[in-house]
Amino acid sequence: MIMQVAVGIDIGGTNTEFALIDRKGTVLDKGKLNTRDYRKPEDFVEALFREIGMIAHKQGNTVSITGYGIGAPMGNINRGTIEHPAGLPWTGIIPVGELFSKYTTLPVYVTNDANAAAVGEMIYGGARGMKNFVVITLGTGLGGGLIVNGKLVYGANGFAGELGHTSVRPGSSNRECGCGRKGCLETYVSATGIKRTLLKIMADSVLDSELRNLSFNELDSVKIYDAANRGDKIATEAFNHTGRMLGFKLADLVATVNPEAIFLFGGLSLAGEMIFRPARETMEEQLLSVYKGKVKLLPSQLNAQNAAVMGAGSLIWAIEEI
Amino acid sequence: MIMQVAVGIDIGGTNTEFALIDRKGTVLDKGKLNTRDYRKPEDFVEALFREIGMIAHKQGNTVSITGYGIGAPMGNINRGTIEHPAGLPWTGIIPVGELFSKYTTLPVYVTNDANAAAVGEMIYGGARGMKNFVVITLGTGLGGGLIVNGKLVYGANGFAGELGHTSVRPGSSNRECGCGRKGCLETYVSATGIKRTLLKIMADSVLDSELRNLSFNELDSVKIYDAANRGDKIATEAFNHTGRMLGFKLADLVATVNPEAIFLFGGLSLAGEMIFRPARETMEEQLLSVYKGKVKLLPSQLNAQNAAVMGAGSLIWAIEEI
Repeated sequence: MIMQVAVGIDIGGTNTEFALIDRKGTVLDKGKLNTRDYRKPEDFVEALFREIGMIAHKQGNTVSITGYGIGAPMGNINRGTIEHPAGLPWTGIIPVGELFSKYTTLPVYVTNDANAAAVGEMIYGGARGMKNFVVITLGTGLGGGLIVNGKLVYGANGFAGELGHTSVRPGSSNRECGCGRKGCLETYVSATGIKRTLLKIMADSVLDSELRNLSFNELDSVKIYDAANRGDKIATEAFNHTGRMLGFKLADLVATVNPEAIFLFGGLSLAGEMIFRPARETMEEQLLSVYKGKVKLLPSQLNAQNAAVMGAGSLIWAIEEI
Repeated sequence: MIMQVAVGIDIGGTNTEFALIDRKGTVLDKGKLNTRDYRKPEDFVEALFREIGMIAHKQGNTVSITGYGIGAPMGNINRGTIEHPAGLPWTGIIPVGELFSKYTTLPVYVTNDANAAAVGEMIYGGARGMKNFVVITLGTGLGGGLIVNGKLVYGANGFAGELGHTSVRPGSSNRECGCGRKGCLETYVSATGIKRTLLKIMADSVLDSELRNLSFNELDSVKIYDAANRGDKIATEAFNHTGRMLGFKLADLVATVNPEAIFLFGGLSLAGEMIFRPARETMEEQLLSVYKGKVKLLPSQLNAQNAAVMGAGSLIWAIEEI
């Protein structure tokens, strides 16, 4: 019997990973290339297609490819493009779907990492059977993928879910964001955000902390987590503050789309209750009473190692089946 | 030829209006009852059904009713209920759908006023042909109805779109809201919100204003509008501040669901550019660059007089046709 498989592709600033994945989420084989080796997107897509051909060929006649799902920064599903990505070696609007169509007539879907994570959670993870939920990806920045009525929310321009760029407060006396604006959620809630919060607390407090020996560039969220685990008060307060900021904005999100659950994915979410507890407490405190106690705040159930390619590949099943 | 009609019902704290409406939005006939005359919801539904029968009967054999669409505060489409409504004479959970089923086997849909307004805008108004947009109703409070991928967003518990209860800023040194929380958007952006803002500006400023002769209870948004039109600086600043607060939160909404357009409906929206200009300017200023210049901020195109019953009735066409 021939098995239908999706090709999941995660295009990152350093590496591009790809995998053959069946409908149940089993990764049959995978590979990667160095994104930076290709100065032209045309050359990149050609090399990628060849490498995928290689692992598909190794499966012999047992698999049949259903389509290609691509997760990439600023991926736009409406247009099959990557648009002005900050972290990739290419600039402008990259017509990935069109470049693929030189090699295949199968469907090719492109979306951003957080949207791919949301679909992955629905097809393979903790959101199986849910029709309304949100996935928040916590990395260097903060991304969001929304599922409403069982479908991914793309929005009119293909850029829904940019929750990292909702604002924590009005006015301009706020943290500068890489996007050129001020006070964006990801300036507080992300691997970088928690470092900024830690510095702010160190500046305001006289408490001692092992982290006072590290420069901003030496710090990372794992070191802050480890210090908090050893009882460091400043590190603990940095997690509390980060969680509260997140919880505060989650309450807004609940009032907007009333999800059944919110999943936290990657990076800071691995700190477990250290971030979940303050986030959950603040969210519950801020929720309108009709929502209180009804929205689950959960860790992603996707296997972290393969989550990005699985999320990307799952686009194929979501679009075919739902 | 027999014409299919929807029955649109708008249950308000004082009056309940109902109308027979065809697919194009023509109101064939309408009527109303005094909501407060009925101490029990059972009696209310019986009287309502009788009155609707009366106007339907007058159409003779030319119309056939397709279903009943009901807009009501805290209407829950998932359950066909009205839940703990603040402004109605009944308390607890009112099973409107079930009460209707004593009299009819036709479909009965219940939702809140803002959701009904959103569907009305899609079926009869300025959002015809749009798949992703938001309607914001500005009245005593602020409500929201979201359409995503061409469908109304109900959420997991039937309470999506409570945009009036998203928060303007974290912390507790904010305006108290009727919901028991602090800093909700509707404490700034609503007929009541602008009065509160006006008082705050009067308190902080030494400028003279004709509105300094009116008590809080004597003030209303029309008087503030008229004063601003006559060049009153404090009234003008109250509109500017209200518009900016709205624009600030609209930018969050755009980053969340990336709508093609946002429609403002009722109340304050009738002040036209006095509220639209500061709202649009602040929204554009706050938008992430991928959205700039792409999201239209528009007045509702529904006829204000029949908008509530038309929105309610349109639920029938939305669910039958989309």
